[in-house]
Amino acid sequence: MKNVFVTGAAGFIGSNLVDRLIAGGQTVIGWDNFSTGRKKFLDGALASPKFKFVEGDDLDLPALTQAMAGCDAVFHLAANADVRFGLEHPGKDLQQNTIATFNVLEAMRASGVKTIAFASTGSVYGEAEIFPTPENHPFPVQTSLYASAKLAGEAMISSYCEGYGFEGYLFRFVSILGERYTHGHVFDFYKQLLEHPEFLKVLGDGTQRKSYLYVQDCLAAMLHVMNLGMAKKAKHRAEIYNLGTDEYVQVNDSIRYICATLGLKPKLEYTGGNKGWLGDNPFIFLDTQKIRATGWKTTLTIEQGIGRTLQWLQQNRWVYDTSSRK
Amino acid sequence: MKNVFVTGAAGFIGSNLVDRLIAGGQTVIGWDNFSTGRKKFLDGALASPKFKFVEGDDLDLPALTQAMAGCDAVFHLAANADVRFGLEHPGKDLQQNTIATFNVLEAMRASGVKTIAFASTGSVYGEAEIFPTPENHPFPVQTSLYASAKLAGEAMISSYCEGYGFEGYLFRFVSILGERYTHGHVFDFYKQLLEHPEFLKVLGDGTQRKSYLYVQDCLAAMLHVMNLGMAKKAKHRAEIYNLGTDEYVQVNDSIRYICATLGLKPKLEYTGGNKGWLGDNPFIFLDTQKIRATGWKTTLTIEQGIGRTLQWLQQNRWVYDTSSRK
Repeated sequence: MKNVFVTGAAGFIGSNLVDRLIAGGQTVIGWDNFSTGRKKFLDGALASPKFKFVEGDDLDLPALTQAMAGCDAVFHLAANADVRFGLEHPGKDLQQNTIATFNVLEAMRASGVKTIAFASTGSVYGEAEIFPTPENHPFPVQTSLYASAKLAGEAMISSYCEGYGFEGYLFRFVSILGERYTHGHVFDFYKQLLEHPEFLKVLGDGTQRKSYLYVQDCLAAMLHVMNLGMAKKAKHRAEIYNLGTDEYVQVNDSIRYICATLGLKPKLEYTGGNKGWLGDNPFIFLDTQKIRATGWKTTLTIEQGIGRTLQWLQQNRWVYDTSSRK
Repeated sequence: MKNVFVTGAAGFIGSNLVDRLIAGGQTVIGWDNFSTGRKKFLDGALASPKFKFVEGDDLDLPALTQAMAGCDAVFHLAANADVRFGLEHPGKDLQQNTIATFNVLEAMRASGVKTIAFASTGSVYGEAEIFPTPENHPFPVQTSLYASAKLAGEAMISSYCEGYGFEGYLFRFVSILGERYTHGHVFDFYKQLLEHPEFLKVLGDGTQRKSYLYVQDCLAAMLHVMNLGMAKKAKHRAEIYNLGTDEYVQVNDSIRYICATLGLKPKLEYTGGNKGWLGDNPFIFLDTQKIRATGWKTTLTIEQGIGRTLQWLQQNRWVYDTSSRK
């Protein structure tokens, strides 16, 4: 893995990955359409001769194939991560997740690139019955179009591994936190508290239990198993790993951390119900024994991760201005 | 379920379904693009005032939506069923299975149709570890693009049930046999024996174990659980059923039945290996307790099903002429 192609390179996780790969001496081609990515996240990378950026969309297969030439591994992180509003535009998950992943695979096949890491989601388990949820938990029910499309992506990658000799690393993420975080409940809560420190609107009843992983721990896990070549050793050359912490918090705990950090005591207004929205998973807590058995471990607790995230948001309020992404 | 829309209406299973629905007093709109369907299979249906046929392609969403108007249930049977050659044209499974299923769901949403039956496949289990394989068996590995795309279809339907209040019936079929069968190993073997009765080329080593279900038993099972409204009673309004027999045969057994029926003793030439082709499942045998618990049972054994199929092929050799489908 010397020449790495990163889709979603200007995004939260993607841009952190780019920086980490460059720091590790790898050359990187970043690809992004700026639908949610921020050019500013690549400022550091763009100063390095090890980095090249190509603006483009996964749906443009010829351009994607051309951009990928000469690489030996792909991190496919570009996605429609808009889980909550999936029902308002169901075609978006099909286009930007399912079809985009197909195009990435086809571009790889055309370019002779055979190693792919894929950002999947713990939401594929739908409403799991076992907690923490292991990778081999059955998941007959899909509660969001987002998770359906991620599952479709996983399945395609798995069949490319079987059929074309690809090596696939499928990572089922919990929510990721940390520097450059621009999406999710800590982001929303902090935004609300900037606008009106005296009250906070909470989707659901606040008892939803979620697990969060610090972005650098997430990246370390991915790179660790890929450097070990775990998929090469697997029977089907496709390895699935849950990525998360071995703890979870309630949304209410998270609110407590945030308010304590900011020194605020807002009035909480709950919308009610045990789900934040239709299709929300009221409990996501993944069994991470498989990834931990490879020697990886987390460095931050959820509380520390939330703290780090808030600190970054406080120093980078410009991310709330979405008028220009480039 | 009074006005039923059937995609793939001119196909093997679709045309049998159309006839059965009409005989049961329902009105039916049949939809097919004749990519593999045969107009002749609809001769009987077209003579009935209860039936209307619309030629069209699932990828044409406006036409599909228009054709579906006034229906109250959809059987989505149209598919690229070309499992074996998936690796030669990976886009076909994406287009004709994944995107086609998305379009059917979107046409339903636009037309207010909320009940869908979907022909999925026992291949979604990849290489299962438990036999017979129950519905809640985990399936981390996808061995074919076909199964990946069917899994993507299942997942989308499940999330439409959750998000838009659809009722979904997901049927994971073993191979289906019977009148109008035009695809699969009995079809291929009989074709070979017509051309050269003295030898038979067999993909793999003949020990692949497969389960087969007679088409009328398959249709009876689908209609049975839909008439019982099983998905309405389910927590997530999406019900998954394995459909198969509680027996399996080796490809070699099947060859024995075929040769005995035809009175032939061909020399067998095996290509070798425990799979017929890359991505073939060497063993498919589904646990059908869930569907049997609803009161459904098979009427034909696998041997009887193969016999019935051969008899029909002998009487309908025209199906081997694919020069004109209409």
